[in-house]
Amino acid sequence: MLAPKKATLQGNPSHVMPSELIDKCINSKIWVIMKGDKELVGTLRGFDVFVNMVLEDVEEYEEGPEGLRVTHMDTILLNGNNIAVLVPGGKPEAEVEQ
Amino acid sequence: MLAPKKATLQGNPSHVMPSELIDKCINSKIWVIMKGDKELVGTLRGFDVFVNMVLEDVEEYEEGPEGLRVTHMDTILLNGNNIAVLVPGGKPEAEVEQ
Amino acid sequence: MLAPKKATLQGNPSHVMPSELIDKCINSKIWVIMKGDKELVGTLRGFDVFVNMVLEDVEEYEEGPEGLRVTHMDTILLNGNNIAVLVPGGKPEAEVEQ
Amino acid sequence: MLAPKKATLQGNPSHVMPSELIDKCINSKIWVIMKGDKELVGTLRGFDVFVNMVLEDVEEYEEGPEGLRVTHMDTILLNGNNIAVLVPGGKPEAEVEQ
Amino acid sequence: MLAPKKATLQGNPSHVMPSELIDKCINSKIWVIMKGDKELVGTLRGFDVFVNMVLEDVEEYEEGPEGLRVTHMDTILLNGNNIAVLVPGGKPEAEVEQ
Amino acid sequence: MLAPKKATLQGNPSHVMPSELIDKCINSKIWVIMKGDKELVGTLRGFDVFVNMVLEDVEEYEEGPEGLRVTHMDTILLNGNNIAVLVPGGKPEAEVEQ
Amino acid sequence: MLAPKKATLQGNPSHVMPSELIDKCINSKIWVIMKGDKELVGTLRGFDVFVNMVLEDVEEYEEGPEGLRVTHMDTILLNGNNIAVLVPGGKPEAEVEQ
Repeated sequence: MLAPKKATLQGNPSHVMPSELIDKCINSKIWVIMKGDKELVGTLRGFDVFVNMVLEDVEEYEEGPEGLRVTHMDTILLNGNNIAVLVPGGKPEAEVEQ
Repeated sequence: MLAPKKATLQGNPSHVMPSELIDKCINSKIWVIMKGDKELVGTLRGFDVFVNMVLEDVEEYEEGPEGLRVTHMDTILLNGNNIAVLVPGGKPEAEVEQ
Repeated sequence: MLAPKKATLQGNPSHVMPSELIDKCINSKIWVIMKGDKELVGTLRGFDVFVNMVLEDVEEYEEGPEGLRVTHMDTILLNGNNIAVLVPGGKPEAEVEQ
Repeated sequence: MLAPKKATLQGNPSHVMPSELIDKCINSKIWVIMKGDKELVGTLRGFDVFVNMVLEDVEEYEEGPEGLRVTHMDTILLNGNNIAVLVPGGKPEAEVEQ
Repeated sequence: MLAPKKATLQGNPSHVMPSELIDKCINSKIWVIMKGDKELVGTLRGFDVFVNMVLEDVEEYEEGPEGLRVTHMDTILLNGNNIAVLVPGGKPEAEVEQ
Repeated sequence: MLAPKKATLQGNPSHVMPSELIDKCINSKIWVIMKGDKELVGTLRGFDVFVNMVLEDVEEYEEGPEGLRVTHMDTILLNGNNIAVLVPGGKPEAEVEQ
Repeated sequence: MLAPKKATLQGNPSHVMPSELIDKCINSKIWVIMKGDKELVGTLRGFDVFVNMVLEDVEEYEEGPEGLRVTHMDTILLNGNNIAVLVPGGKPEAEVEQ
């Protein structure tokens, strides 16, 4: 966590605030990279300040001993505290493991 | 955690808030995927802001050295801080390990 | 943790709140499953908001290299922050390891 | 942590609150079981809300590669955040490893 | 965390506050070294008090069993809680692994 | 952490509060046992509520693959969050590894 | 963390508060020992209550499989939450690994 100097974080218009970036993803695809080897791609329906996320039409990718395991789930609530990276727009084709 | 820009999280009606999603699951089946290899399926009777959950008619699935161990419990209180994913409606048949 | 939408967590009467469930266990048997391999069964005498618990007439079960180790303790204070699951009524006979 | 429903935790007289249990141990023997393999027995002189404890006439038991290591210390301050279980009255004779 | 003595942290003009240093990186290259073996280089578009960061034109470097894996991503939101070191100006040429 | 019942922690004069114990060590020797295998002995010059400690004339003992490594440091600031036990008066002769 | 008894931490003039010690290091060399095997030496330009630190002219020392790896960086922001020990004045010559 950072202890902000007042002026810095009052919201410099040129900044793109993290919460704004996620807000723009509502109702569109998002690629969620978790700490560890799990990834998910789904449509974002909502989120809260803890980055808990309501996702629909979800594909979960997990590297296991028998190779890549893909699980489909209709609607899920994902706990935000293990998320490492969010990529608006979903996973680029080139990155989608066969 | 996110530092929200005021407007973003005041509650955009099109958002499905995580707490709303769980609230809709009261008195119906829910599939709880924990961090690590444990999963539970049960009927949700209540929860709090820490996502501690009161579950009834619970099946607990755990991968152990001797294969999958299934334990039935009538009523439990599940500590919320190790939950990874919640899936309303319970575990789809295809996913239920034999 | 969840950021609740006001209405959701104001207390819907049909909910069974986690704290209510534990409160009903006062002076009766409870089965405590910890994170890791430890379990305890005892009579609940009191608890606080951190789920620290005063237990009496306690059996502690721990899987060790030499098999199951069972330790009896009269009265204990159990630190709440490693509890995974609470089961009101204690451990069903079938589950009690010989 | 639990989100208490007002009535529950206002202090039901029949409850034995965790802090009361420790308070009763002041100036008497207490057995402290830590997370991991360390245990201590000593006389409790004081504690705070973080369960940091002032102990006197302390025996510390630790399982090491060369067997059980016992260290005597006159007065110590024990950091509360690694305590698993507190047992008022100290360690029963049967449990004291030779 | 530190408990500051009032005068110390009121902002001694000669100090360069951490939040000021990041603020100066807005719209320029930054090298992010994570705890563990992951590194990223990208253009900083915004951040919040939890050091969650909006990065654009991102290269992610990760040491894997098959050697160095480099992934390009257009825009990402990086969770701040696993960041170890931030280096304004990006990664010096000499340091860029081939 | 404990949720105190008002009367308990208002400060019973017979208690020796943890902060009082450390305060009495100012300007005298203290033995600091860390979580893991590190220990330090030094003169305590100051501390804060997070038990960050200013120590002078410090010997740091660490068990390494090549045996015990002893490092002398004049003045240090020790981060409080990895401290397991504090022993006023320093390390008794018998305990000082050769 | 400690629950202070009012008088103890109001600031006894003979105490050297941790934040004062760091404040005195502004614009001079400091040796930062991290949890794990990483160490840094640099000139301190600023810090905040989370001990995030702005360092300049930095040498980072890390023990790796191929021996000691030394990396030079001009200006960095170091996340405070993995710092174990701070040593004002930098690393004594005898301690500087060749």
